[in-house]
Amino acid sequence: MYEKYWKQTGDKTTVVIPGWQLISYFSDIRNICWFLENEFADAIVKLHNKVGNAVTEGRHIVVGTGSTQLYQAVLYALCPDNSGSEPMSVVSAAPFYSSYPLMTDFLKSGLYKWGGDAHEFNADKPYIELVTSPNNPDGSSREAVVNGRRGILVHDLAYLWPQYTPISSPADHDIMLFTVSKSTGHAGTRLGWALIKDEEIARKMTKFIELNTIGVSKDSQIRAAKILSHVSESIDNKPESDQGGDNFFEFAYDVMAKRWTQLRAAVNRTTLFSLPSFPSGTCSFSGHTFQPQPGITWKE
Amino acid sequence: MYEKYWKQTGDKTTVVIPGWQLISYFSDIRNICWFLENEFADAIVKLHNKVGNAVTEGRHIVVGTGSTQLYQAVLYALCPDNSGSEPMSVVSAAPFYSSYPLMTDFLKSGLYKWGGDAHEFNADKPYIELVTSPNNPDGSSREAVVNGRRGILVHDLAYLWPQYTPISSPADHDIMLFTVSKSTGHAGTRLGWALIKDEEIARKMTKFIELNTIGVSKDSQIRAAKILSHVSESIDNKPESDQGGDNFFEFAYDVMAKRWTQLRAAVNRTTLFSLPSFPSGTCSFSGHTFQPQPGITWKE
Repeated sequence: MYEKYWKQTGDKTTVVIPGWQLISYFSDIRNICWFLENEFADAIVKLHNKVGNAVTEGRHIVVGTGSTQLYQAVLYALCPDNSGSEPMSVVSAAPFYSSYPLMTDFLKSGLYKWGGDAHEFNADKPYIELVTSPNNPDGSSREAVVNGRRGILVHDLAYLWPQYTPISSPADHDIMLFTVSKSTGHAGTRLGWALIKDEEIARKMTKFIELNTIGVSKDSQIRAAKILSHVSESIDNKPESDQGGDNFFEFAYDVMAKRWTQLRAAVNRTTLFSLPSFPSGTCSFSGHTFQPQPGITWKE
Repeated sequence: MYEKYWKQTGDKTTVVIPGWQLISYFSDIRNICWFLENEFADAIVKLHNKVGNAVTEGRHIVVGTGSTQLYQAVLYALCPDNSGSEPMSVVSAAPFYSSYPLMTDFLKSGLYKWGGDAHEFNADKPYIELVTSPNNPDGSSREAVVNGRRGILVHDLAYLWPQYTPISSPADHDIMLFTVSKSTGHAGTRLGWALIKDEEIARKMTKFIELNTIGVSKDSQIRAAKILSHVSESIDNKPESDQGGDNFFEFAYDVMAKRWTQLRAAVNRTTLFSLPSFPSGTCSFSGHTFQPQPGITWKE
């Protein structure tokens, strides 16, 4: 979707890795997430601060092989390991990302199980509620719906970027998940990150990734650092450009706006399909007033 | 351990990835393992054929985020998903790789569970036996030990390379696991591969990786393809060199031989420690006659 943009950046976003570099399992053993490359961590913090879509202060960063792996790491981190206790229920308000139930249940874990639609959930026991905002598949802004005191919230914010939805204020939740595939389009790099307030949760997520894949590709992290840094710099270069040009988010916003205009025009010519309307908002980052223009969901 | 070798290769093993390349989730949708880069697959086949350590003909290749992820993918692929059936036992002859029990049990899966030392296992029901050869941690050559007809064998051949053990004939098992970290030293790249005879098992392993991480870093695959191709070419360049020089396996063999000589000399000066002796063999690849010189095991 954004390939044209990345082509026009030329050599500026090319990554070069000599054969003898990034050989070790370890990135920084002083870090809780010991396989997190500092370059990647710095690029994330810089980008969030510029875009204003999430608070990074007082957060631990955990890198994952896509937000898919981070989702599983969060479940592992949040579920107590007491033999005898029932698996914890994981719920989300329908319609939800179609892969959630499968990702939760495919190993028949004794730690957690898919609990279905959060609207129907009877919260008399501990549970995890996934809040996907903007929501996948329908693009709506979401808040928690279960009214229980024993729940833990996980915010999947993959689409919380200014090409998809007007940014209002920085998201400030305890557990927030992001991914490179939705922010810049680099799905093949398989890289996501979590912003985690609680140290013990960050530590247990790191343990999951150690047991699951002994860390995360250093090559992907270095490449993503280069890509995300370029995005940050592109904002500086032309902060008020209306042409898009070098500013990544202006380019991406224009791509999404054009596609949604075409899609709405096509659907308006039929009575077989309809598209949702969303309330418009003014984006604190770009200044554009627009209604959300959801991204494409990957499905098999 | 092999950093010095990779430094001397200079630009020849440097990988260069432009910002617009390898963006997609997909590599080749005609392949069972749809996220496997053809370049990486070709490099694997070429290297095995040159070294003569494993049969690749009639095998499906599945790429994983290290052989750790492939191990979990194999368990998922081999265990039937019948509710009601007991978790399948996974066993290995002691002493075994210290991470196996943890990797097997950390999610309390209902599909499989760690069954301990294969020598003690009573094989009256279906089971999976891990055969690690050369063995981690002790370097010995291994064959299956459970005498049961309902078992499935998984061969973890991470150390089956000519710097660690004399290669006799190509390994020819149904399920074989390999990893870049032990063959070339590039642990940070987090890349492994499985050679799988049965199509349905390859398909289910691919499904696991789809659910666990939606594929495997393309950046790592392209980099590993470059590294492994260089190794193959280095064999051609100096097939009979005694100097090591450009031939990767000669260099790596010399590193291991030197370290083991030093280690044996140091241990011989004490009575507190002892080291195992292994039968010597002549390597069909290098022509060297030597006793196994096991690699270093990564542990936390």
